[in-house]
Amino acid sequence: MQVLTNTKFETVAFQWPNGFYSDGIHIGLRRHKKDFGWLFSKVPASAAGTYTTNQFQAAPTKLTKQMIDHNHQLQGLLLNSAIANSCTGAQGWQNALQEQTWLANKLAVAPDLIGVASTGLIGAQLPMDKIQNGLPQLTPTKSDAVTYAVLTTDKHPKTVCVQCELSGHLVTLTGFAKGSGMIHPKMATMLGFVTTDAQVDGDVLQSMLSTNVDSTFNQITVDGDTSTNDMVVTMANGLADNPSLEPGTTDYDIFNQALHYVLGQLAKQIAADGEGATKLVECNVTHAASDEDGQKIAKAIVGSNLVKAAIFGEDPNWGRIISTIGATDADIDIDTVDIEMNGIPLVQDSLAVDFDLAAVQGTLHDSQIMIDVDLHHGAASGQAWGCDLTYNYVKINASYHT
Amino acid sequence: MQVLTNTKFETVAFQWPNGFYSDGIHIGLRRHKKDFGWLFSKVPASAAGTYTTNQFQAAPTKLTKQMIDHNHQLQGLLLNSAIANSCTGAQGWQNALQEQTWLANKLAVAPDLIGVASTGLIGAQLPMDKIQNGLPQLTPTKSDAVTYAVLTTDKHPKTVCVQCELSGHLVTLTGFAKGSGMIHPKMATMLGFVTTDAQVDGDVLQSMLSTNVDSTFNQITVDGDTSTNDMVVTMANGLADNPSLEPGTTDYDIFNQALHYVLGQLAKQIAADGEGATKLVECNVTHAASDEDGQKIAKAIVGSNLVKAAIFGEDPNWGRIISTIGATDADIDIDTVDIEMNGIPLVQDSLAVDFDLAAVQGTLHDSQIMIDVDLHHGAASGQAWGCDLTYNYVKINASYHT
Repeated sequence: MQVLTNTKFETVAFQWPNGFYSDGIHIGLRRHKKDFGWLFSKVPASAAGTYTTNQFQAAPTKLTKQMIDHNHQLQGLLLNSAIANSCTGAQGWQNALQEQTWLANKLAVAPDLIGVASTGLIGAQLPMDKIQNGLPQLTPTKSDAVTYAVLTTDKHPKTVCVQCELSGHLVTLTGFAKGSGMIHPKMATMLGFVTTDAQVDGDVLQSMLSTNVDSTFNQITVDGDTSTNDMVVTMANGLADNPSLEPGTTDYDIFNQALHYVLGQLAKQIAADGEGATKLVECNVTHAASDEDGQKIAKAIVGSNLVKAAIFGEDPNWGRIISTIGATDADIDIDTVDIEMNGIPLVQDSLAVDFDLAAVQGTLHDSQIMIDVDLHHGAASGQAWGCDLTYNYVKINASYHT
Repeated sequence: MQVLTNTKFETVAFQWPNGFYSDGIHIGLRRHKKDFGWLFSKVPASAAGTYTTNQFQAAPTKLTKQMIDHNHQLQGLLLNSAIANSCTGAQGWQNALQEQTWLANKLAVAPDLIGVASTGLIGAQLPMDKIQNGLPQLTPTKSDAVTYAVLTTDKHPKTVCVQCELSGHLVTLTGFAKGSGMIHPKMATMLGFVTTDAQVDGDVLQSMLSTNVDSTFNQITVDGDTSTNDMVVTMANGLADNPSLEPGTTDYDIFNQALHYVLGQLAKQIAADGEGATKLVECNVTHAASDEDGQKIAKAIVGSNLVKAAIFGEDPNWGRIISTIGATDADIDIDTVDIEMNGIPLVQDSLAVDFDLAAVQGTLHDSQIMIDVDLHHGAASGQAWGCDLTYNYVKINASYHT
């Protein structure tokens, strides 16, 4: 469950893969910032998605899932922030369908190749006049404007771009995402998008995405809330012209590692930009009885309000960490737990180590905090990312008025 | 799962049941406040307990559980705050046993009639010299000093006292508890104690306690953390001389309702005095498919950071409530959910009601907030209590230094 780093791909400056175009503009959903955008491939792309497990799945999430499940193909996506089109009933569903039709017409493609994604306030209807007026203003650009158009309380866009060579063909993977509350993977919503010009069958892409999302996006938490609109969508348009990816091949492994890296980087960027956050917290659990137990414990630690508040206070309060471990139903040995914070041992065999408090506190000024837990109880591991709990988290969420 | 109110018992001013004595003093575990106390019955009492599900169960919790499980009898309890004697290994266990022996000697009873309870910082050893010196200072009083000695970050003690008549015999139930963080039923710890002079067999008492704790203490949440020291202990010394309580009798029902009331009141007092809290939040879920689903949804709502921050901000943000409902795995109909806040409808059939925002916000100035959720999906119900998430919660937990 480690994020693999591999010399077989490299991070590069932001750019779109071959054949992908996008735009982001302001149409008045937010006060001043960009709030509306599109993303499309000039040819139909293989597509895969993972979606919120919230029972109140928003209309755009439901619609996009239906399109991708249908034949794992997608060509264009219409995106907006400020309004989630969630808990909007029959009207909300009609509005999502209307958006789909409008974009299909603009791109002159079949509606089942079009997805929609919305993020923002739950319960409000989309102002369809603003969307209809905005649509002709969207142009096919190679800019990163769309990565701004999906933001809500995020302080900055989350993007990552890597390139690798598959059988001699240069392949680009470009991902972007928005956070930054109601993240357990809030306001209402985590959205992630990965585009690539790799050639890969939709079913293969879906399987790669699902597996990698489990160990990346599904292992971040800002506030323990799961929104109605969460969605990660990957589109692969094949324009890199590599031999189509098949499991068991070197190309598959390289691409899979690159995809894992892209998803992991976006996940970490979301956690680091969690509402009000001042610190990114990474937790690595080793020697767990199972990967599931390792992931459960890691996520519980980065998700504990008490641990998060202690980290904001730059206090190495290991009692809260071990208590959080014990509150899970993971299979552990209660006498063999070691805990390190920023590489300094605090607990050995479940008992306090006589550590240098000032030295640990010194390292807690950093904006990245590492918590390592060794369970000495197996061969598996788990990793999760979160952020500290701050006055600003409370402020943002107490003042985000209905 | 409603808290039953019943004219068959009445709340009275604080007093101890017949034969119960206690004391609370300062021995230097905390800076200035009372931190050490005892509670005992002049005769052995039937005893029942419920304990933390945290895998790192503290030494005092483990020891008291063993004593009660042994034959459901207890005569005395030694209590301290400031240090939890949790994650303290073999030394911690020896210290708990030493405390037990000391109190058994002082009371001249068998050690297996003695329990111990500690609350406070995890990982530190008890200063046994202070405890040994403190013990002779404890006197048998009828004061409420012990209800202060168990407090940590609590702003005030939690007590409740009711009386009822069982077959012509006046019976008193007196409960006290401490919160006020690491409550999902923090710092480290929820402790609750109920004393009564009712005559009731230990097994019967255990069954009544376990059932009632499920719908009271186990339905409160301050921060979603389950501590290593949580424990609710009930002692019944029989000095009221009522016929011993048997299931199926009127006396049993009256006492059971009184016990439920006492536990419910203590639970609500803990939630209202949650760390940093300014408001008590009560959630009632009706027409659920099962009591389990109703309780799960009610507890998820009062436990959501987003809902808690919105309530601190006096914002009727129902989108966060419905999203929290959907994030559970409870059996619901996603089209039939109604939500009211302080009696004002916000959502009907899972869609926004056009409510008077200023009117709702007006009611949110109150220190008690009521959220009613009608699922229209069954005949069961659930109830839970929590508090708002405030700047002070973060401050308290960022500055409670190791």
